[in-house]
Amino acid sequence: MSEIVHVALDAMGGDNAPGEIIKGAMDAISERSDIKVTLVGQEDVIKKELEQYTYPKERVLIRHASEMIEMAEPPVNAIRTKKDSSIVVGMNMVKQGEADAIVSAGSTGALLAGGQLLVGRIKGIERPPLAPLIPTTKGVSLLIDCGANVDARSSHLVQFAQMGSIYMEHVVGIKNPKVAIVNIGSEEEKGNALVKETYPLLKECPGINFIGSIEARDIPGGYADVIVCEAFVGNVILKLYEGLAGTLVSKIKEGLTSTPISTVGAMLAKPALKKTLKDFDASKYGGAPLLGCKGLVVKTHGSAKAMEVKNSIIQCVTFKQQDINGKIKENIIRKDEA
Amino acid sequence: MSEIVHVALDAMGGDNAPGEIIKGAMDAISERSDIKVTLVGQEDVIKKELEQYTYPKERVLIRHASEMIEMAEPPVNAIRTKKDSSIVVGMNMVKQGEADAIVSAGSTGALLAGGQLLVGRIKGIERPPLAPLIPTTKGVSLLIDCGANVDARSSHLVQFAQMGSIYMEHVVGIKNPKVAIVNIGSEEEKGNALVKETYPLLKECPGINFIGSIEARDIPGGYADVIVCEAFVGNVILKLYEGLAGTLVSKIKEGLTSTPISTVGAMLAKPALKKTLKDFDASKYGGAPLLGCKGLVVKTHGSAKAMEVKNSIIQCVTFKQQDINGKIKENIIRKDEA
Repeated sequence: MSEIVHVALDAMGGDNAPGEIIKGAMDAISERSDIKVTLVGQEDVIKKELEQYTYPKERVLIRHASEMIEMAEPPVNAIRTKKDSSIVVGMNMVKQGEADAIVSAGSTGALLAGGQLLVGRIKGIERPPLAPLIPTTKGVSLLIDCGANVDARSSHLVQFAQMGSIYMEHVVGIKNPKVAIVNIGSEEEKGNALVKETYPLLKECPGINFIGSIEARDIPGGYADVIVCEAFVGNVILKLYEGLAGTLVSKIKEGLTSTPISTVGAMLAKPALKKTLKDFDASKYGGAPLLGCKGLVVKTHGSAKAMEVKNSIIQCVTFKQQDINGKIKENIIRKDEA
Repeated sequence: MSEIVHVALDAMGGDNAPGEIIKGAMDAISERSDIKVTLVGQEDVIKKELEQYTYPKERVLIRHASEMIEMAEPPVNAIRTKKDSSIVVGMNMVKQGEADAIVSAGSTGALLAGGQLLVGRIKGIERPPLAPLIPTTKGVSLLIDCGANVDARSSHLVQFAQMGSIYMEHVVGIKNPKVAIVNIGSEEEKGNALVKETYPLLKECPGINFIGSIEARDIPGGYADVIVCEAFVGNVILKLYEGLAGTLVSKIKEGLTSTPISTVGAMLAKPALKKTLKDFDASKYGGAPLLGCKGLVVKTHGSAKAMEVKNSIIQCVTFKQQDINGKIKENIIRKDEA
C-alpha cells in the first residue's frame, strides 16, 4: 500500500464551512485509503458536524483552534497575531512535519503570507507562486502566478515556468506540458520590459517545453498548459475569468427564460447545457497550490463545496506521492547557479 | 444645420474590406446629413463596390491609395515606408486638417504608430491611449489604455482617467462617469508599484469622479464607466473578454445541440437568447478612439461589419461636434503644471 498522506484541513475557512468542508473530508477519506485528515478548527463545532458520519477514526483527527482569520484582515498581521487560528495552527503542523499539506478555503492573503512566513520557502526558490487551474476547452491550464507577488522579476518567472511544468506533468498528468508567457502579441519583440527580459530566458531554460507568447484571447482555447505571468496580470486573468463566465451564464439564463416559448426551450435544453458547462469547470481538479514551499499549501475557492474540497485533498496525495517538492529541489535553476 | 464632419475611411483595412466597410459608409451617409466620407484605398476596387449604391456624390469622395499595410507588418516601419497606403494617406488627410477623423479596421499597431508619428499628440498629452468600449451588464465601460504604451507611468494613467471621463461624458453620454483603476484588491494599499503610485494622484485629481479600485471580476458588472489601467493589463482584459466570450458561447451552442431534445429546446430558445447576447455587444457603440491626438483616430475591430463601421463614423461626428479635443486641451493636467 502507498504511504499515507496527512492533510491538515482548515475546517473553518470559506463560505460553506464547516459543513461542506467536512463533507469533502469524509468523501476523500472514503474514496481513498491512503489519506489521513486532521480537521483544524473549533472542536465542538467540528465534533457536532461529524456526528452525522461514520468514518475510520484513525484517519480523521481533530485539532482545536480557537480563532479564525477573517477575509478582510490584513494577512501578515493576522498570521502574526492570531496564533491560535485554524490557518496558523494548520500551517504549523506542516512546518513541523506533522502534516504533509494544508488545504484551506479561507483568506488567500493569509495563506500566501503564512506559506512564506510559517511554512517557509524551499532553498533557492525566490518566490512561491499561487497557481490555480483554469478551465479551457481542452481541459485545464495552470495559471502561474496569481498570488500577491506583484512587481516580479524575470528570474521569478523562470522558476514559475519550471515549477508549473513539474506540477502539470506529475500532478495533473500532462506529458511534456507546453509553457507560454502571457503577452500582448505573439511576436518575440512584443511586450513590456518584464516580458521582453523573460522571453529569452524561457527560451534557453532547460527542461521546459516553451512555446512562446500567448495572447489572452487564446487562453480559453487551452493552447498552453502552463501560463506564466506576473501576479498582477495573473490575478486580473483569474478574476476576469470568474466574473465574465458568471455574467455570461446569467445573461444566457435571462435570455433563455425571457419569453414563454424560450422557457420551454430552456427546459428541454437544460440537462445537455448543464453537462457542457460542467466540463468548463476547474473545481473538479481541486485547489490552487502555493508552489515552492517546504510543505504543500493549497487554496480552494472561498465558495468551495464538498467536491472541490475532496479533490483538493486528493491532489495533496498525488503531490506527496509524486515527490513534487523533491523534483522542484532537483530541477529548479537557482539564482546562485544561473 | 450642424457643421459637416469629414471622415477619412480606410476602405481596405479589416477582414470584411471593402464590402462591409463601404456598406457602413453608405449607411452612415444615409442616416445622417452632417457626414462626409472620403473612402481611401484602391480607386478601381472602391468604384466597383460603389456601383451598387445610390448616394449623394458630394458627401462620398474617393482618395486613391495604391498600397495596403498588412496586419503582420512591423507598424513603425510600415508607416514610414508605405507612404501610399490607405492608413498613411488617411492619416495625412487628418494631419493636414483636410479630414476631421480617420476610421480604420486595419492594423492596430499601424494606427497607433501613425496616430503618434503622423497625426501627432495634443500639446501636453504624454501618451495617446487606445480606449475601446467593452460590454457590461449595464451598458458599456471605457477600457483605457489598450494600446501599445507598455510600461506606463502614473502621470500617463492620470491623463487617461481625465481623457476617458471627457469621452464617456460627452460622446457616450454618461453623466459624471465613475472612474476606477484596475487592481488586485479593493483596498487602497493593494496593488503593484504603478497602481500604488497612481491611486493617490487619481484621488486628488480634479474634475473626475474617482471611485477607487476595481477588481477584474467586477468589470463585466459595469461598476465603473472609465476603467483605467496600463496598456499591457488593458490588452489582457480586452483580449480575454473576446476570447472567453467566444469560447463560452460556442460551448453553450455545443451543449444546446448535443442531444435531439436539447436541439428542439435550442430552436425554441434561440430568438430570445440571441437578443440577450446582442445586448452584451459593444459593436453598436462603434470603435476604439485613440485619444489625445490632434485629430481623431478610430480603430474598429478587424472583423467589423457595416453596423460597427457606421457607428464608428457617427462616433466621429459626436466627437467633433462636442469638441472633445478642445475639452481635452482645456482640462488635462499637463506635466509642466502638475
